[in-house]
Amino acid sequence: MREALAWAATGRGEVHELFVTTVAATRNPDVVRAAVDAGVRVSGVTDKAAAALSETVTPQGVVAVCSPVDVPPAEALVPGVRLVAVLHGVADPGNAGTVVRVADAAGADAVVFAGDTVDPHNGKCVRASTGSVFHLPITRVRDAAEAFDGLRSAGLRLVAADGHAPEDLVTADLRGDLAAPTAWVFGSEAHGLPDDVVASLDASLKVPIYGGAESLNLATAAAVCLYASARAQRA
Amino acid sequence: MREALAWAATGRGEVHELFVTTVAATRNPDVVRAAVDAGVRVSGVTDKAAAALSETVTPQGVVAVCSPVDVPPAEALVPGVRLVAVLHGVADPGNAGTVVRVADAAGADAVVFAGDTVDPHNGKCVRASTGSVFHLPITRVRDAAEAFDGLRSAGLRLVAADGHAPEDLVTADLRGDLAAPTAWVFGSEAHGLPDDVVASLDASLKVPIYGGAESLNLATAAAVCLYASARAQRA
Repeated sequence: MREALAWAATGRGEVHELFVTTVAATRNPDVVRAAVDAGVRVSGVTDKAAAALSETVTPQGVVAVCSPVDVPPAEALVPGVRLVAVLHGVADPGNAGTVVRVADAAGADAVVFAGDTVDPHNGKCVRASTGSVFHLPITRVRDAAEAFDGLRSAGLRLVAADGHAPEDLVTADLRGDLAAPTAWVFGSEAHGLPDDVVASLDASLKVPIYGGAESLNLATAAAVCLYASARAQRA
Repeated sequence: MREALAWAATGRGEVHELFVTTVAATRNPDVVRAAVDAGVRVSGVTDKAAAALSETVTPQGVVAVCSPVDVPPAEALVPGVRLVAVLHGVADPGNAGTVVRVADAAGADAVVFAGDTVDPHNGKCVRASTGSVFHLPITRVRDAAEAFDGLRSAGLRLVAADGHAPEDLVTADLRGDLAAPTAWVFGSEAHGLPDDVVASLDASLKVPIYGGAESLNLATAAAVCLYASARAQRA
């Protein structure tokens, strides 16, 4: 909630209205005050209404109605971007939101929701991002090829995170590859990236598996990939 | 299922019985054959029974009854161990299982379930580990101080993963600290590690946050920490 208000304060979006239960208003007087100070209309609601509005079984009792968080690709992929996370065909909103959180933590400049990826405004995605959807530019591009063109035009090297890639990211990093401006492309948890997508990118790398596990899940793989780039770019 | 049978084949545990639905047996004839070949009793069950046995809403139709996967601390923490993940007070079984999967992928030698951490045999934990509970030694130690003593005796440096630590793991890695035999200690998603636990360990490190996120979730933080050590130890 604080993140939404801070985001609106920068002029990048708007909080239209805040719905709050009596209990939540008592617990979070600072949030209500900040909303009022920002000129946001605050309305009291019942617990039942808050639950219905927040589409969750354990609502926090505060619901903000915001303008969409996504921006046009040209606004997100400005010249000078160094690290971008691209989700391709990620259907699970919790996974998508967790990757947004990881990308934000790793200092990524933007997250691209490409192809048939879930809507970033899905409630589970917003919650899993723990406010990060308000921190960095989110852009949606239905046509993945168009997204890749935009990323290349912004000077980014497109790297598929692919568990079946012959090379791992440590090897690539030792060669200096990860220091380049990079867009990491992540596929769905269930199927990974389609072969033709991998083939259309500039490189594909796997997270090395040193033990008996077959793979990592999407969010943990994204964490290792994005942090490897973030570190290499800052070295 | 294959992991359970492979685990039993090494003599580290036993698969007592396999319950399988008709549909699942048709889909996975190799699993049924492997079980029969291994001398495991295979029993047909209804979909309803399989659902009840597996305690999940989307059962796969195959349920194995296994001996416990956990081993005594002395068996898990043998001299020469280099990388261990320790869960302290982690209540969420899905998070615990995901960390087991990450630890396995990063080549950790063992996972310690310490203090009030969830039971590793919890169905959600086993499922989230995607078979990894069968790949590396899991040990449970109720008394966290006792667990830490055992880890130190095995020659491990105890490092708290603590979002509030003054130093980050990149700084420590550049100094060479992560190449040492290390036990990473992870706290609960909700509260992290208690201050007295952090104070009782040899060091505390945070994952650097380069962007606007407040923190990482448990599994993604564990991925960054464990992979940083795995890489440093192999460099």
